[in-house]
Amino acid sequence: MSERTAARKRRQARAERKPDSIVQRPFRQVTYRYRPMALLSLDQIQSIHHTACRILQEIGMKVLCDEARKAYREAGFDVDDSDQIVRFEKAGVEALVGKAPEQFDLHARNCAHTVRIGGPHAIFTGVGGPAYCMDLEGGRRAGTYEEMCNFLRLVQSLNILHQEGGGGFEPLDLPPETRHLDVFYAQITLMDKNWHPWTMGLAQSMDALNMGAIMMQKTLEEIAGATIFTAIINTNSPLQLDIPMAQGLMTMAQYGQAAVVTPFTLAGAMSPVTLAGALAQQHAEAMAGIVLTQIVRPGAPVMYGGFTSNVDMKTGSPAFGTPEYAQAAQASGQLARHIGVPFRSSNVTAANSNDAQAAYESMMSLWSAMTGQAHMINHAAGWLCGGLAGSFEKLIIDAEMLQMMAAYMEPFEVSDAALAFDAVREVGPAGHFFGTAHTMARYETAFNAPLVSNWDNYDTWLERGQVTAEQRANQIWKQLLTEYERPPIDPAIDDELKDYVARAKREGRVVQG
Amino acid sequence: MSERTAARKRRQARAERKPDSIVQRPFRQVTYRYRPMALLSLDQIQSIHHTACRILQEIGMKVLCDEARKAYREAGFDVDDSDQIVRFEKAGVEALVGKAPEQFDLHARNCAHTVRIGGPHAIFTGVGGPAYCMDLEGGRRAGTYEEMCNFLRLVQSLNILHQEGGGGFEPLDLPPETRHLDVFYAQITLMDKNWHPWTMGLAQSMDALNMGAIMMQKTLEEIAGATIFTAIINTNSPLQLDIPMAQGLMTMAQYGQAAVVTPFTLAGAMSPVTLAGALAQQHAEAMAGIVLTQIVRPGAPVMYGGFTSNVDMKTGSPAFGTPEYAQAAQASGQLARHIGVPFRSSNVTAANSNDAQAAYESMMSLWSAMTGQAHMINHAAGWLCGGLAGSFEKLIIDAEMLQMMAAYMEPFEVSDAALAFDAVREVGPAGHFFGTAHTMARYETAFNAPLVSNWDNYDTWLERGQVTAEQRANQIWKQLLTEYERPPIDPAIDDELKDYVARAKREGRVVQG
Repeated sequence: MSERTAARKRRQARAERKPDSIVQRPFRQVTYRYRPMALLSLDQIQSIHHTACRILQEIGMKVLCDEARKAYREAGFDVDDSDQIVRFEKAGVEALVGKAPEQFDLHARNCAHTVRIGGPHAIFTGVGGPAYCMDLEGGRRAGTYEEMCNFLRLVQSLNILHQEGGGGFEPLDLPPETRHLDVFYAQITLMDKNWHPWTMGLAQSMDALNMGAIMMQKTLEEIAGATIFTAIINTNSPLQLDIPMAQGLMTMAQYGQAAVVTPFTLAGAMSPVTLAGALAQQHAEAMAGIVLTQIVRPGAPVMYGGFTSNVDMKTGSPAFGTPEYAQAAQASGQLARHIGVPFRSSNVTAANSNDAQAAYESMMSLWSAMTGQAHMINHAAGWLCGGLAGSFEKLIIDAEMLQMMAAYMEPFEVSDAALAFDAVREVGPAGHFFGTAHTMARYETAFNAPLVSNWDNYDTWLERGQVTAEQRANQIWKQLLTEYERPPIDPAIDDELKDYVARAKREGRVVQG
Repeated sequence: MSERTAARKRRQARAERKPDSIVQRPFRQVTYRYRPMALLSLDQIQSIHHTACRILQEIGMKVLCDEARKAYREAGFDVDDSDQIVRFEKAGVEALVGKAPEQFDLHARNCAHTVRIGGPHAIFTGVGGPAYCMDLEGGRRAGTYEEMCNFLRLVQSLNILHQEGGGGFEPLDLPPETRHLDVFYAQITLMDKNWHPWTMGLAQSMDALNMGAIMMQKTLEEIAGATIFTAIINTNSPLQLDIPMAQGLMTMAQYGQAAVVTPFTLAGAMSPVTLAGALAQQHAEAMAGIVLTQIVRPGAPVMYGGFTSNVDMKTGSPAFGTPEYAQAAQASGQLARHIGVPFRSSNVTAANSNDAQAAYESMMSLWSAMTGQAHMINHAAGWLCGGLAGSFEKLIIDAEMLQMMAAYMEPFEVSDAALAFDAVREVGPAGHFFGTAHTMARYETAFNAPLVSNWDNYDTWLERGQVTAEQRANQIWKQLLTEYERPPIDPAIDDELKDYVARAKREGRVVQG
């Protein structure tokens, strides 16, 4: 047999070989063990907080929703219905913000997936909000419900994701009026992890709550005492709260669910070009939203969302994972801790493909979030194209980066066994450690096992087809889908959910927003 | 004109357009402003240090070089010439390590490029040591002297690189016996930054010193008082110091140049599989080398190199930029600070192409080095294939990441002007900040300008040819080469260098090692 024939046969054998099953870390929350990065001094934190309070008091927020203005007025704030501006007296803001809990549990259908929000704990959440679906073969495109279901199956399958983030991308083959019902049904039945509902307006929010209650087999008042939702509420920066978001926030708070109040303060566009100014405005908008949750239900869980980034000043396009973004994320964590509210950050990039840029911008986001000790890393996996696409390959590459961050955050063991003096003596100068008892007892679990990374030498890598990280990610998500197992659900609950969806569709509720 | 024709004409116009000149940050050292990450507690640091001292005392180092053993013996350490083992009494080690300076200046031919090593200062150094050259068109291959010169021209051109790292890759078209002379000549004349000499043995080290002295127009004793070199000295882990490295270390120390003592302690192969054990061994080997510099010349500048990583336990291949690598880098920084010696870390990856893996592994390295406050980030730009290739595209992508890290490390301004209360009032709710005076006065310099990153929206990115970060990096290094200007050098110095190289080649010195 010639060399060439032998090589071809080897390649063929490899191609036919069943792929190794995919090794993952177990499902486990990340715990912070070190001090967070202190980018801002206490003086600087206080200056930004003080400026935010001045913004709320002297400029105010424009609140488009009548019920929200009514709530602010009844809480004693200065409301002008003619221009819809609410102005906030500082002591009142601080008193209400002070009622928000510093930590809370977030319950999942499978109680093994219930997580703790706040304190030294962190969770990683799948991407939410993209309009488009994206993968290596099809590029960016309108996604279907079936594709979205596959995305959810992968979020369920990836142990490193502690929470689902809102559907991955829009199922554009479904009618917009009732799409959310199908998404909620998929989130509940294809997964048993905690998930993000859509909360654009009252009807959508109530559907989420009702279906969440069915999922847990509890009443609405019971889930108010055992939170099941974190819901992203964006202010309409600068300094505006629109009707659907205000309704979503108030409805969630009313039923004891956690609004994640997240201003979208792009420095140079929707906020000042200076980071301190952008953060002062972010802090003002976040506090205005947090205050509203505490008016509606004092003590309701709530989160402070930081999403300040900068624009490309040549084009006005948003940029993500920049140095300014990293500074803003860490400073935002300090501002959230200053007012005692759990903090949400993100894993973001402006890249349009899963290239080096996507990875280094994501890593800027992730490292700043983790060293700044965010409690929730939203969009932790799957975000591409500046958030306009939910990418199947990015989902996997991000999962790899998240596994690496989780392993990095593991405690560093210094014991006699770990210090390994006897192993060093046994091997002695110029030996090697491969076969020692100390190595053999530990080598299978000593190091983080990669999901995507390829550590072949160059010649082997060439021979095996020069597969890039993006191509490996493509293979991995397909393999994970074939290995996916739907988590069990009581058929009676499943029927009740189906009935709810059918009834809501029949009644033709119109989603506001 | 049809739509299609118009689009073609636009594409053509773009293709013919002279590319924008490349925007870079100015040459400036990075300053650390925050506390370093404290991965290890003081107790843990002391345990590792104590174990390292036990390793040196009870197991010892095998020192192959007669002159080195002689020096250790004369300093009072326990030397056995039959098995070449040197054992180190702890008090003697600590006394000698304590003589090493905590900071020193590192002089460049152009004094504007002189840098400070130690304290709150950091430098970024180009890759050194790869056997192969690599670019997008040619893949990995044997590199030529002319290609190596191009690599040096790029290192000179990239402001974010504060120091050159040792030639980028081997010029394999030159005879190995005298190759170093041509490399030194190129390093001196194509650049005016500080550069890394090769120091494998006495002859190579003396050539570096002699040519460095000509470069500075000083005597050897004068450059001993104004350090011009940091030289990588690897121990031969575990616990061995070979002849060429010992000679390089001793020669550099003798002339007041800084050895960068760097054990290559791959956990599971050349050191224990546990990180604490690998670090104890690294710390022992580093201290043995540092001690030797201080025996040769008390007070000589020296650096502590951390290079602990892990192997892939399935194949034995080295892995880089792993979570274990990141933990080891930060812990190494703490160990170096514990003994008061400036610390060197690296920017490394095992990836074989400039894909997402290359970027996320590099970012793991970079963030751990920067939050661990390394004083020198070696291989900061250009390292690929686990260090076996110097990649032209990686050089550029790394430069982008380094610019981002440098911008992230810039001070965060909180002043009345930065807090921008008046701008927020001027814009008010639901406005935008694009045209405000506050924005207009700052937008050109407010944010870090990207070198590689593309922030186009997806449709524009598609229309412009779906260019990836690696392809953009390819365009950028070629453009930088066309814009390269050789820094001026006194023709008399140039002649003196040429004479030295010609004479050394004629005399046919044999490089030891």
